[in-house]
Amino acid sequence: MVYLDNAATTPVHPTVVQVIQDALINDFGNPSSTYRIGKSVKHALIQARKQLAELLNVSETDVYFTSGATEANNWAIIAQANKSREFGEGHHIVTTAIEHPSVTNVTKYLETQGFDVTYIQPNEEGEITVQQFLEATTDKTIGWIAMAVNNEVGSILPVQELGEAAYEQKLWFHVDTVQALGHLELDYQALKCTSFVGSAHKFNGPKGIGFLVYRTYQEHNHLEPLLHGGGQEGKMRSGTENVPYILGMVKALELAKKDITSNFEKFEELQAYLLTSLDSIGISYEINGDQKNRVPYINNLWFNGNIASQMLIKMDLDGVYISAGSACSAGSLTESEILKAYYPNQSERWSQSLRISFGYQTTKADIDQFIHTLEKITKGKIDLWHSNK
Amino acid sequence: MVYLDNAATTPVHPTVVQVIQDALINDFGNPSSTYRIGKSVKHALIQARKQLAELLNVSETDVYFTSGATEANNWAIIAQANKSREFGEGHHIVTTAIEHPSVTNVTKYLETQGFDVTYIQPNEEGEITVQQFLEATTDKTIGWIAMAVNNEVGSILPVQELGEAAYEQKLWFHVDTVQALGHLELDYQALKCTSFVGSAHKFNGPKGIGFLVYRTYQEHNHLEPLLHGGGQEGKMRSGTENVPYILGMVKALELAKKDITSNFEKFEELQAYLLTSLDSIGISYEINGDQKNRVPYINNLWFNGNIASQMLIKMDLDGVYISAGSACSAGSLTESEILKAYYPNQSERWSQSLRISFGYQTTKADIDQFIHTLEKITKGKIDLWHSNK
Ligand SMILES: Cc1ncc(COP(=O)(O)O)c(C=O)c1O
Ligand SMILES: Cc1ncc(COP(=O)(O)O)c(C=O)c1O
Repeated sequence: MVYLDNAATTPVHPTVVQVIQDALINDFGNPSSTYRIGKSVKHALIQARKQLAELLNVSETDVYFTSGATEANNWAIIAQANKSREFGEGHHIVTTAIEHPSVTNVTKYLETQGFDVTYIQPNEEGEITVQQFLEATTDKTIGWIAMAVNNEVGSILPVQELGEAAYEQKLWFHVDTVQALGHLELDYQALKCTSFVGSAHKFNGPKGIGFLVYRTYQEHNHLEPLLHGGGQEGKMRSGTENVPYILGMVKALELAKKDITSNFEKFEELQAYLLTSLDSIGISYEINGDQKNRVPYINNLWFNGNIASQMLIKMDLDGVYISAGSACSAGSLTESEILKAYYPNQSERWSQSLRISFGYQTTKADIDQFIHTLEKITKGKIDLWHSNK
Repeated sequence: MVYLDNAATTPVHPTVVQVIQDALINDFGNPSSTYRIGKSVKHALIQARKQLAELLNVSETDVYFTSGATEANNWAIIAQANKSREFGEGHHIVTTAIEHPSVTNVTKYLETQGFDVTYIQPNEEGEITVQQFLEATTDKTIGWIAMAVNNEVGSILPVQELGEAAYEQKLWFHVDTVQALGHLELDYQALKCTSFVGSAHKFNGPKGIGFLVYRTYQEHNHLEPLLHGGGQEGKMRSGTENVPYILGMVKALELAKKDITSNFEKFEELQAYLLTSLDSIGISYEINGDQKNRVPYINNLWFNGNIASQMLIKMDLDGVYISAGSACSAGSLTESEILKAYYPNQSERWSQSLRISFGYQTTKADIDQFIHTLEKITKGKIDLWHSNK
C-alpha cells in the first residue's frame, strides 16, 4: 500500500494506539467523580492539558478539548462573532476564500444570521496578504479568520503578520492551524491570535478529538459555551471527557514535535524527489497554490489534460492512495473550491489536479510507485483504459 | 474494587476495547476518501449505522452520530426550538425539573434567547405525569422534553404516554433516553418522540461518542446542523467521523441488548438483596424518587443523619465507589438539584443520600462489601473518624 494522502488523515501511531488501549481498560472512571478512580482519571486529564499547553507554549487555562477541529472552528468563530456583535462592535468578518469547509460553512451560516463576510481571493502569485485584509476591513469589522496552512495546496498564509495587524486594529483573530500542527514549526505563543485549533488525526492521532486554544485580550470578549451541560472544561465545554483519545492526542503531538525538524527535512527531500522524478521521465505538471510560501508535505499538481477522477481510479487499482481535493469534505469528487479560488479562469485545472501529501512513514519507494502508476496512466492512457475492459 | 457507580459511567467491555483497537489500527482511512481504504471505512460506518438502527428499531436515515449525549441533547433541543420559533409557532417549552444538566442548561440557555420554559416538579408520589405537562401547555408551547429514566434516582417517566399526548398537540417531543438504553426494554419505534439520544459510556462503551435519532413528523421542522463544515452525516453533523468509537458503541449496545432481560432480572435481584441486607442489619433508609415507577439498577437512598460526603470518603478508603449525586456534572459535592426538586422541604435529605447503581459485572459480593463499609460508618461513626486522624 502506498499512502500519500496524509493531509486527509494519518494512520494512528502504534504508541498512540497503545496509550488509548491502556486508558480504555484502566482509566474508565468518570473524571467528574469524587472518589479515587475518578480522581486518577481527572489527574491524567489535568496532566494531559498541561503537557499539551507546554507543547504549544500556551497557558493550560486556555486549552479546551473538543471532538475535533470542526467543533473547535465552529465554537471559536460563532462565540467571538456573537460576543462582538452583542457589544455593538459591528457585524463584519474578513476571511479567505481558501478556508476549510469547517470555517467557510460557519461564516456562511453567520451570513444567514445577519453577519457580513468578505472572502479574500489569493492574488496573482497565489498569495494572501495582510494588505488585502486591511483593505477589506471597515469600521464594522469585528474579526479576521485565516488558516496557517491550506489543506489542499499547502500554501502558507502570513498568520504571524495578520495577527499583529489584527491586534493593532483591536480585532479578534481566529487561526485554523490544523495543517501546521506537528509538521511546521510555529511559535504559538508569539502568534497574536485570539484562538487557534488542532485535530489529532492530522498528526497520527485518532479521529474525533481536537482542541481549541482561546486567549482573548478583550475583557468583554470572553468565551461562551457552544455545548451546555455538566460544566466540564471549566464550564466551557460540557460532555463527559474522552480521556483515552485526549491522552492519545497529546502523545501523538509529543511524538510529532520530537521529530518535527528531521521530518520537515525529509519532506523537503521527498518533495524534491517527487518533482525531479516527474521532470526526468518527462511528465509535465504545474504546482498549484502559492508558489513561494508553501509546505513541502502537501503538493498539489496540475497534470494538464488528465482528468483527476480517472487518474484516481487507476491509482486506486494499483494500491496508490492520493486525492484530488479535500477528503475532509464528505465524499464525492466535485471540483475543488480551493482551486477555483486560485484559478478562476482556468476551469480545466480544477478537475485535472492531484494532491500528494506526505507523512512520517512516507518513503522514496512510495513516490517511485506513484510515479510508476502515473506514467502508465499518462503515457499509455488509451490502451490502459481498454485493456481493463 | 467495588464499583457501584454505573449510572455515572461504566467500564468499557473487553470486546468493545478489542473492536476499537482493531479499528484504530486497521480502519485508519478517512471515510470521505474516494479510494479503497477510505471506502472500506465508509462501509464499516454504513454497516454500524444500519446495525444501530436495527438495534433501536428505527430508520437508519434518522441516526446521527455525535460526540456524546451532551452534544445530542444540545443539538436536538436547540434545533427544534429555533425552527418552531422561526415558523411562528411560539416560544414556550415544557420540561421537567429533574432533567440532566445537558438538558437543563440548554433550556436555561434558551431562556436567555427569549424562550419561556416551564419546569415540572415531581408530585407528592414522586411522579411526573402527562396531566402536569398538559396543564403547563399553552397556545405558545412548541415542544416538550422529558427523560426516560432519571440518572440520579432511577425514576421512570411516562415517555410513551407523553409522546402520544405531544403528538396529538402537534408538539415536538425530545426524550433523553441515556439511562434507559441497553438496560430497560423500550420500544423506540412505538415511542412517539421526534428525537432521542444515547451515550455509549452508559452501556459499557467508550466516553465521547453518542447518537441522536431525529424523525420529525412536521415537514418544516427538519433538522438543522449544530456543527457546520465538511458535510458528514448527511450534511447534518460535520467533522471527521470517529469510526473506532462508533463501531465500539454499536458493539456495546449489541452486547447489552443481547443480555437485557437476564441483566434486568439480575438487577431486580441485586436491588432486593441490597434492601433486605440493609433491613436485616437495621440500617434505616428511605428510597428517593418515584416510589412506584423506577428502575432496579439505580438506587438512591436517604440515610437520615449521615452526611453523604463523609460517607463517600470512608467508602473510597475501603475501595467502594459510589456517588452522592450526578457525577456527570463536573466535580464537586454540591447538593443535588434533583433531590431538591423531589423534596423541596427536606433539606437534610439533599446531602444525606447515596446513589448505588449496578452494571452487568455487579455481584452480591459487591453489595456485601458496600453494606459492610456502611455498617462501619453508620454504627461506629465517631470512633472511625477519629481512628483515622
Ligand atoms: C484545515 C483543516 N481544518 C479543519 C479540519 C477539520 O478537522 P476535523 O476532521 O477534526 O473535524 C480539517 C480536516 O479535516 C482541515 O484540513
Ligand atoms: C440522563 C443523562 N443525559 C445525558 C448525559 C450526558 O451524556 P454524555 O456523558 O455523553 O455527555 C448523561 C450522563 O453523562 C445522563 O445521565
